[in-house]
Amino acid sequence: MMNFNIAMIPGDGIGPEVVEQTVLVLEKVGEIYNHKFNFKEALAGGCAIDEYGEPLPKKTIDICKESDAVLLGAIGGPKWDNLPGDRRPERALLGLRKALGLYANIRPAILFDQLKEACPLKPEIIGDGLDICIVRELTGGIYFGEKGRKDTELGQAAFDVEIYSEEEVRRIAKTAFDIARKRNKIVTNVDKANVLESSRLWRSVVEEVATDYPDVTLNHMYVDNASMQLVRNPKQFDVVVTTNMFGDILSDEASMITGSIGMLPSASLGEGNIGMYEPVHGSAPDIAGLDKANPMATILSAAMMLRYSFGLEKEADAIEKAVKKVLDDGYRTMDIINEGKKAVGTKEMGRLIIEAL
Amino acid sequence: MMNFNIAMIPGDGIGPEVVEQTVLVLEKVGEIYNHKFNFKEALAGGCAIDEYGEPLPKKTIDICKESDAVLLGAIGGPKWDNLPGDRRPERALLGLRKALGLYANIRPAILFDQLKEACPLKPEIIGDGLDICIVRELTGGIYFGEKGRKDTELGQAAFDVEIYSEEEVRRIAKTAFDIARKRNKIVTNVDKANVLESSRLWRSVVEEVATDYPDVTLNHMYVDNASMQLVRNPKQFDVVVTTNMFGDILSDEASMITGSIGMLPSASLGEGNIGMYEPVHGSAPDIAGLDKANPMATILSAAMMLRYSFGLEKEADAIEKAVKKVLDDGYRTMDIINEGKKAVGTKEMGRLIIEAL
Ligand SMILES: CC(C)[C@H](C(=O)O)[C@@H](O)C(=O)O
Ligand SMILES: CC(C)[C@H](C(=O)O)[C@@H](O)C(=O)O
Repeated sequence: MMNFNIAMIPGDGIGPEVVEQTVLVLEKVGEIYNHKFNFKEALAGGCAIDEYGEPLPKKTIDICKESDAVLLGAIGGPKWDNLPGDRRPERALLGLRKALGLYANIRPAILFDQLKEACPLKPEIIGDGLDICIVRELTGGIYFGEKGRKDTELGQAAFDVEIYSEEEVRRIAKTAFDIARKRNKIVTNVDKANVLESSRLWRSVVEEVATDYPDVTLNHMYVDNASMQLVRNPKQFDVVVTTNMFGDILSDEASMITGSIGMLPSASLGEGNIGMYEPVHGSAPDIAGLDKANPMATILSAAMMLRYSFGLEKEADAIEKAVKKVLDDGYRTMDIINEGKKAVGTKEMGRLIIEAL
Repeated sequence: MMNFNIAMIPGDGIGPEVVEQTVLVLEKVGEIYNHKFNFKEALAGGCAIDEYGEPLPKKTIDICKESDAVLLGAIGGPKWDNLPGDRRPERALLGLRKALGLYANIRPAILFDQLKEACPLKPEIIGDGLDICIVRELTGGIYFGEKGRKDTELGQAAFDVEIYSEEEVRRIAKTAFDIARKRNKIVTNVDKANVLESSRLWRSVVEEVATDYPDVTLNHMYVDNASMQLVRNPKQFDVVVTTNMFGDILSDEASMITGSIGMLPSASLGEGNIGMYEPVHGSAPDIAGLDKANPMATILSAAMMLRYSFGLEKEADAIEKAVKKVLDDGYRTMDIINEGKKAVGTKEMGRLIIEAL
């Protein structure tokens, strides 16, 4: 019997509801495959501000550091929108990424066959489906570079520094090439090397790393072109590797073109096996507490956790299959309902997935 | 009889062909409405590198500065792709923007009714059409901030500084609000104020400018969300105002969702009436010199020139109407051809538009 410690951060809005179902799913997986998952709850985001006056209490960081992985629901909401920058709920996310050294954000943009109709792109562009993996650098760049204010001739000015070191680029590039090896062996590097010095260094390091992966094809694309190509011909992409800022924009665009954004999981990885797993969707405060939220993205994030942090490949597969089965059987939460399908709430959806396991 | 001096920069690839037809169209307009357009040719981009060893010779800057407006074809191509960053063709664009103080890039993303089929988004998302105006800051931000290299513990690092002063934000915000007044009176400000200090200053100045435009509605949107909303529900946008970097990405995405990218013009404006006008599409080296290029985007850019730099509203309308008429009559260049339409080359397309005037 294997023992795994999971820090559980339900967070705000629909976070607690979707995490609750995910915990039940994991417990069922533990039962079937004989693993023990120990959950330790921690507060982060808006609820932590309410409780402790700060979005990321030290205690939360400690709980996460002592765990094998972190499962996060969602963070933020209008209630905390008017706080100053450094005290907003989102700081918890940035703080956790940095504290745990989670430099690689993996976001699969997958079109679920059963939800094809929800895709905003025309069927001829989508063809038989979409499966892109965005690898976004997560602890560097303009997010964490120096920032501040200064006085200039043109009034006060504010600045943020985009900065990347060779080593930061090297490790994220390796992550991307390793993932590509298990997929279609194409890496598209996205940068703005025709304008940015940081992109020129970025590109040259990616090229250097590529020499260790002769079996993987490397392409370069400027970020403006990438944002077009995702709409025009998304099927050309396999693995996309890019900076923190460009990845923020492109991974959201890629999620949206699948039409399945409420279904998409994400993993944030660092050195070793530690990882943080969370759905791509937000905290949806408007439907919080109403048993309306779709728990599938969080449940699929737990599958990524089993795969990446615990090495439990077959258990991860089982969860993914269970989710597909429930979709095939025609069950849908409100966000993905369409004609002829059976509407269910958050809890019932969780129960169906557990049953399908 | 009014006299206007136009600096003409044909540039690389298909640039010379599309500019040639545009000049003919302008001459016809001059004839009909009794204006005199004087053209002075200048080199920039790849052809200037070939001729003078630098992408933006001083002589070109001088010619532009002495003109009332600049008409540009396209710049760049694979031939010059391996030059070092500061000697690439694109430097000409950046250099011209800075030298002429063109801080406001206006890019209408319009869906041409006649080309609806080319739109990558589903008809239910597009509805009765699309008409978004992206206002991108063009002479500041990370494009022109300090950049360089330095040594760190993690190897060499490279950096670029995103910086905005109050005055830089104020003037571009005014441009956006002025344009919104003549349209649907909605400005969507796009930034990343939850992470960037420069965005926080940007947002507060936009809000300050908004108080002078009580008749215009102002929304704020984070850039990651904006890149999703352009795909999910582009009809919510009227005027979008954003930074140089975000505008680069979002304006290309917006162009692409119209499906009419080969048709879209742009204007780059500064203080006073000076402006640079160019198509959104690139230099398409693969079809250069083959009489296959679509001159419409450049011709529509000339219409923007008449409107913004010369104040010739009715002449601009006439060009736009002529382009629509030729589309209505079923003529198409290769890039926008579809079943049942009449294929024509660059020159014939120019002739048809002149005829329609
Ligand atoms: C909330 C915000 C700080 C965060 C980011 O920009 O990284 C979010 O958009 C994300 O992508 O996880
Ligand atoms: C060629 C490049 C430097 C330029 C830019 O990034 O501004 C282009 O993409 C554009 O949008 O005009």
